[in-house]
Amino acid sequence: MLAPASTQLKNAFLARTAALLLEKQQEIVEANSADLALAVAAGRNAAFVDRLRLDARAIANLARSVGEIEALPDPVGMITSGSRRPNGLEVRKQRIPIGVIGIIYESRPGVTIDAAALCIKAGNAVVLRGGSEAQRSNRILAELLREALHAAGLPADAVQVPQSQDRAAIDALVSVPGGLDLVIPRGGTALIEAVQRSARVPVIQHYQGVCHLFVHAAADLEKAARVVVNAKAQRPGVCNAVEAILVDAAIAPSAVPKLCAELRAAQVEIRGCERVQALEGAAVVPATDADLGHEYLDLIVLMRVVDGLDGAIAHIRRYGSGHTEGILTEDLGAAQRFIAEVDASCVVVNASTRFNDGGCLGLGAEIGISTSKLHAYGPMGLEALTAEKYVVIGNGQVRT
Amino acid sequence: MLAPASTQLKNAFLARTAALLLEKQQEIVEANSADLALAVAAGRNAAFVDRLRLDARAIANLARSVGEIEALPDPVGMITSGSRRPNGLEVRKQRIPIGVIGIIYESRPGVTIDAAALCIKAGNAVVLRGGSEAQRSNRILAELLREALHAAGLPADAVQVPQSQDRAAIDALVSVPGGLDLVIPRGGTALIEAVQRSARVPVIQHYQGVCHLFVHAAADLEKAARVVVNAKAQRPGVCNAVEAILVDAAIAPSAVPKLCAELRAAQVEIRGCERVQALEGAAVVPATDADLGHEYLDLIVLMRVVDGLDGAIAHIRRYGSGHTEGILTEDLGAAQRFIAEVDASCVVVNASTRFNDGGCLGLGAEIGISTSKLHAYGPMGLEALTAEKYVVIGNGQVRT
Repeated sequence: MLAPASTQLKNAFLARTAALLLEKQQEIVEANSADLALAVAAGRNAAFVDRLRLDARAIANLARSVGEIEALPDPVGMITSGSRRPNGLEVRKQRIPIGVIGIIYESRPGVTIDAAALCIKAGNAVVLRGGSEAQRSNRILAELLREALHAAGLPADAVQVPQSQDRAAIDALVSVPGGLDLVIPRGGTALIEAVQRSARVPVIQHYQGVCHLFVHAAADLEKAARVVVNAKAQRPGVCNAVEAILVDAAIAPSAVPKLCAELRAAQVEIRGCERVQALEGAAVVPATDADLGHEYLDLIVLMRVVDGLDGAIAHIRRYGSGHTEGILTEDLGAAQRFIAEVDASCVVVNASTRFNDGGCLGLGAEIGISTSKLHAYGPMGLEALTAEKYVVIGNGQVRT
Repeated sequence: MLAPASTQLKNAFLARTAALLLEKQQEIVEANSADLALAVAAGRNAAFVDRLRLDARAIANLARSVGEIEALPDPVGMITSGSRRPNGLEVRKQRIPIGVIGIIYESRPGVTIDAAALCIKAGNAVVLRGGSEAQRSNRILAELLREALHAAGLPADAVQVPQSQDRAAIDALVSVPGGLDLVIPRGGTALIEAVQRSARVPVIQHYQGVCHLFVHAAADLEKAARVVVNAKAQRPGVCNAVEAILVDAAIAPSAVPKLCAELRAAQVEIRGCERVQALEGAAVVPATDADLGHEYLDLIVLMRVVDGLDGAIAHIRRYGSGHTEGILTEDLGAAQRFIAEVDASCVVVNASTRFNDGGCLGLGAEIGISTSKLHAYGPMGLEALTAEKYVVIGNGQVRT
């Protein structure tokens, strides 16, 4: 446990990491090229190869992101609440490291740096288990992190990268009771379900985002169209992009054509329910059951006409993934009911689902977006990588 | 999910529960008598029978406790933090119910009432799985709770009490992924380990309290003796009672005799390490390895001489259970190091370990004391029975 590591040592580690990323840029690019070549040879698609790529620009961004984490306040020791009891006891809650955190992730080798930087800044040790497709990139980044720890006078073993690449190694990592203090799986459904199945330690899952936007009868249609297009098309491959647009039947005759026209102008393919098809005809692809609750991660969106707020809430309860859900309305009562009744890590009113992000919500860097309710629901920044203990200071008080 | 249940309905349920406890006092005592008779016939010891007993006074206390929960503020909807982002988005975190909570507990039938009252007030449904030794008592209390829910206009199924009493039923309850949103096992090591082994849902364990008090070289010995005796003898059978006294070698020649004399005056049996034996001779029972890390829950305490703060911290790291750890010192630096380096749900300076309790720390009623770090570490009151989601309110903002 790094509990007693000072802010100064932790920041020295971060500064050294940022510097080493720039110094070793050429070596990192070379190791990454080997991973990329194997991925291309294995016939992986462009999106996959893109997630895997670490070029000079990506490395510079990583170094900048580590510098930003260095600049964030140290969460360890932060007092989050306090009171003085009638008997004079001073009671406070104070942030402490969690302990040893395992991160299991796929593709993006940059996670190796981001996750280690955040975990160490929060006083934790970290076990990083990336995917086999990025093993050469991850290995050199891990060496770099351990070199930076050593240079800062911290134990190099605070970052561990198991070399074994089979699934059994993941099972072994998460199935020892008392081994890890927390495991965070980030990635596809299969990975998360496998971890959930074998875990004997606490799990916070970063599950897929089947995000909805409901265009309510009292929506401002100009605003709604702008938000819908942004939520789908600004960056379609990420978990907070919208995957389904629900349109209130009361305004469908005007709203559906307008929304469809603007989405089409942004190159988005629309899969429409029968009521959307009735309004748009062959201009939309007929939606099937497979489109309900589907995460496209692409320029494709489901559009469905629903009967009012009740219909929208019922749809989201059934098909949402607890990630990000939004309503577009100028009606305060409808917004309030939506906020109260929709269960998601982030409920958004009159804004893009893309704002469910640590940076946008003011947390600074994040390790991902939790769809688990306990401990941290939504973007997980430094504070979510700590726990809180009670501290009680007295002057000889006893209980009577 | 009870998310939309109003404070008014939830409080009506609590008021009705308190009233029914008093109205049905006679029936409850009769059902409990049957449980007690079986326990006595089975040769259970006095402490066991005592934990099982629900007499008129205990029932009146339960009714009062339910009334206190009614008076607490509703945690659901509470805004815990908020900010306005540069782009005008209003961001807040807001408390929401967790969902369906399973409580698995032993002996004390009063838990049935306390746990249901707290869970429902926090908007959750609850599955209560008490021990077979209290099954008649628990059954009548569950009927009472469901009657109170019905009377308040809430679904009776918000409280469920499975009738099956075998261990396999516990496995079934906790091993369905996505079944319960949280399970809280309260009780002995065997119960908690069994739940941990089979759980496929999040677990917050309420584990044993192997609590220490360290009498540092700079302790005020009068204060230390008062606190040590209170922590051990005021109520020895509870988890926040102290189980081991660590005495700094620098003051052992004066501190050990004084502490031993005062503990003996309070009828406490002392198990001493060799250095304590050297000072106290046959007046202490020689401690064996079995005394290290042992939870006596009785008028027995381990006393061990350690070498300074380092020795105390090393002992606690090895033998503590993460529950409550205390230091007695007038030296601010020593207190600060102890607070920073000791990992426990509650670290106490110059006060009795018995204060690690929801009521004493100002939380109101509690469901128990978590020794799990994530989500809630220490006494779990109403707020720990909720999660938090983000709410973002905009005026058409999009991400660029």
